[in-house]
Amino acid sequence: MDVRDLVQAKARAARDAARALALCPTKIKNDALVQMAHGLVEKTGALLEANRADVERARGRGATRAFLDRLTLTESRLEEMAQGLREIAALPDPVETVVEVWRRPSGIEISRVRVPLGVVGFIYESRPNVTADAAGLCVKSGNAVILRGGSDAIDSNTMIAAVLAKAVEKAGAPADAIQFIDTTDREAVAALLDLPGLVDLIIPRGGEEFVRWVAERSRVPVLKHDKGLVHVFVDASADPAMAVQIVLNAKAQRPSVCNALETLLVHREIAPRLLPSLAARLAEAGVELRGCPRTCALVPSTRPATDADWDTEYLDLILAVLVVDDLDAAIAHIGRHGTGLAEAIVTNDLGHARRFTREVDAAAVLVNASTRLVDGAQFGMGAEMGISTSRVHARGPVGVRELTTTKFVVVGDGQVRE
Amino acid sequence: MDVRDLVQAKARAARDAARALALCPTKIKNDALVQMAHGLVEKTGALLEANRADVERARGRGATRAFLDRLTLTESRLEEMAQGLREIAALPDPVETVVEVWRRPSGIEISRVRVPLGVVGFIYESRPNVTADAAGLCVKSGNAVILRGGSDAIDSNTMIAAVLAKAVEKAGAPADAIQFIDTTDREAVAALLDLPGLVDLIIPRGGEEFVRWVAERSRVPVLKHDKGLVHVFVDASADPAMAVQIVLNAKAQRPSVCNALETLLVHREIAPRLLPSLAARLAEAGVELRGCPRTCALVPSTRPATDADWDTEYLDLILAVLVVDDLDAAIAHIGRHGTGLAEAIVTNDLGHARRFTREVDAAAVLVNASTRLVDGAQFGMGAEMGISTSRVHARGPVGVRELTTTKFVVVGDGQVRE
Repeated sequence: MDVRDLVQAKARAARDAARALALCPTKIKNDALVQMAHGLVEKTGALLEANRADVERARGRGATRAFLDRLTLTESRLEEMAQGLREIAALPDPVETVVEVWRRPSGIEISRVRVPLGVVGFIYESRPNVTADAAGLCVKSGNAVILRGGSDAIDSNTMIAAVLAKAVEKAGAPADAIQFIDTTDREAVAALLDLPGLVDLIIPRGGEEFVRWVAERSRVPVLKHDKGLVHVFVDASADPAMAVQIVLNAKAQRPSVCNALETLLVHREIAPRLLPSLAARLAEAGVELRGCPRTCALVPSTRPATDADWDTEYLDLILAVLVVDDLDAAIAHIGRHGTGLAEAIVTNDLGHARRFTREVDAAAVLVNASTRLVDGAQFGMGAEMGISTSRVHARGPVGVRELTTTKFVVVGDGQVRE
Repeated sequence: MDVRDLVQAKARAARDAARALALCPTKIKNDALVQMAHGLVEKTGALLEANRADVERARGRGATRAFLDRLTLTESRLEEMAQGLREIAALPDPVETVVEVWRRPSGIEISRVRVPLGVVGFIYESRPNVTADAAGLCVKSGNAVILRGGSDAIDSNTMIAAVLAKAVEKAGAPADAIQFIDTTDREAVAALLDLPGLVDLIIPRGGEEFVRWVAERSRVPVLKHDKGLVHVFVDASADPAMAVQIVLNAKAQRPSVCNALETLLVHREIAPRLLPSLAARLAEAGVELRGCPRTCALVPSTRPATDADWDTEYLDLILAVLVVDDLDAAIAHIGRHGTGLAEAIVTNDLGHARRFTREVDAAAVLVNASTRLVDGAQFGMGAEMGISTSRVHARGPVGVRELTTTKFVVVGDGQVRE
């Protein structure tokens, strides 16, 4: 079958399943999630075998250790995936939630009610655990999903998706609600973006360039998940111990993710007190610095930063450091170089905290907290599809609620327009 | 100047103005709206003169009377536009509204706060009053706007936009927040869709085909405003008098708009009692019927419908009528032929009302009320940019709140991720 026909056939099946899943009672959806978890545990042997084929292929082509680590499934990782699905089952169902309700002078009552988006196309990297998360979030929110995982995980994902779809059916929900594009042909992605009548939303994850390509090419609306060039600004009034703790956590706790710190801004008044000891702590954590001239003067071991450093998302144990004159300079730097994902200030000055949160434009702005907290689970919103860098529809963590739209329900007793 | 360069220059100016307008206090934005209203009244003479040039050109090319009527400005229409702006000034400011706030066990407090979208590109038909409405809604919601009106209204719109921008400046807000594309070159629309870094949202209004072209071509997110193939289903248990009143209003009160009725579905049990008298009332209102065989049998003067009628948005005093066997048949017909804008049921059966509102997928579903009520002002949401047929971001009437996005504000005292 032609790859375009294949994708279209899957999208049609998803569209039909979406209609049925949208009206599924919460109990059936939760049963489906529990069955999905059970399926992953029950099929552990076959899943690990499929995964071994992926891992061997990736090793053969010389993939990095970090890449192989993300690709590899183990018994305990499968149990974690299953546990993630059970946790999604325990989340409140967003569908049919009444967001607001009011009555007009004419006597009509208007409510705004959450309903599923319909069919979600999800394009993601080679991490098989993401397949289960995404399928689970879509089932819970009543959406059919078309999954397109990274090609290195094709064998693992094909089998995971089959196990999950079978589990959904066992619970009495439509198996076709989980579609997996089981070809590594890149044309399949283009085909998926070309189905505005069948797909309601595309969620792409991955590198900045790829996500931009998807967003600009897609004929279907897109919720972008791309770059996070994240700043922390340590203000003059910051508590130095708190600043060290937040910077270390934001940079080093998991440097490869989008909400990790990339550029540290330090108020010139606190720089002499803060930077030498902070640099020592960062060095202990294996972090390499790229500093402005004032930083290099205070921490002589620092490698001088170039202009490109202020726009580089390292996703690694590297940190750019810039000493700034004041809050205005910090806000202006973030305005020029930030990507609008997460930005933080460490300060004890209430006025500065208020100005920073108001004037910095980002999905999340933080005061005296690590940017690593910008995450669906950390925010108490449950598991997430990722962190949206789009301004429309959903900005920030995308959980089950963000996978819904609303409908107005109007009830009257004969009202007409005058 | 090349038209692409022209549009890009306007978009850059809008982007800069958007940053300033986003932080403007409510008082200044409201002052700007009052000044805008004042400007329209003060410049009545010059505005009417510019409008005469448009009207004469349109008359010269043989435009219909309805078209000329929509294009023509009068002193009282300018006063209505001014009054519309004063009403937008009186609306609550959505910007910096706290949508929700919660505290996590770790002690961080998270709030979700409304902020402007940024730069809105608005593409609309040749109705000069829309220019003032759209500019007003964008100023109120803190967004810069790039206006592209129908080419027949170019002289009127150029002058209206200039008057409005000057008024915004007078209030101490950035005049560049209101940009008008003062060329009828169609390439300008394509250019506007091609600026994902400078424009945050495109709102196109107009014919179905044009809006689809915009949505599929745009590299910027799009909020569609297109087709409304609207149904009313009169159930067996409906109050016949109420059904007549709702059908007449939905069809004939203003047939040229997207929330007007196009296809009437009638339960076979009530059809013999309802259709003859309803048809007489519709005929009095000048409405022509296209009926299914059962309709034609009950109302012999009815012209037989063809298959195409069930998919035709007449936007005129024409109504397609189909007798159906039951609620299921009505819901199935709407699922196949509806465009998801507004769908209504007239019934006294609570179970049927609940099934209809749950199972019919549309921006608005109504029970015992006219579909003409689906409108920002009628819903109490204030003036509107239109009625979105998109599923993402905003579905249904788009008012000032729908022209915003949100940001998460996190306040802690040193919290980090474990």
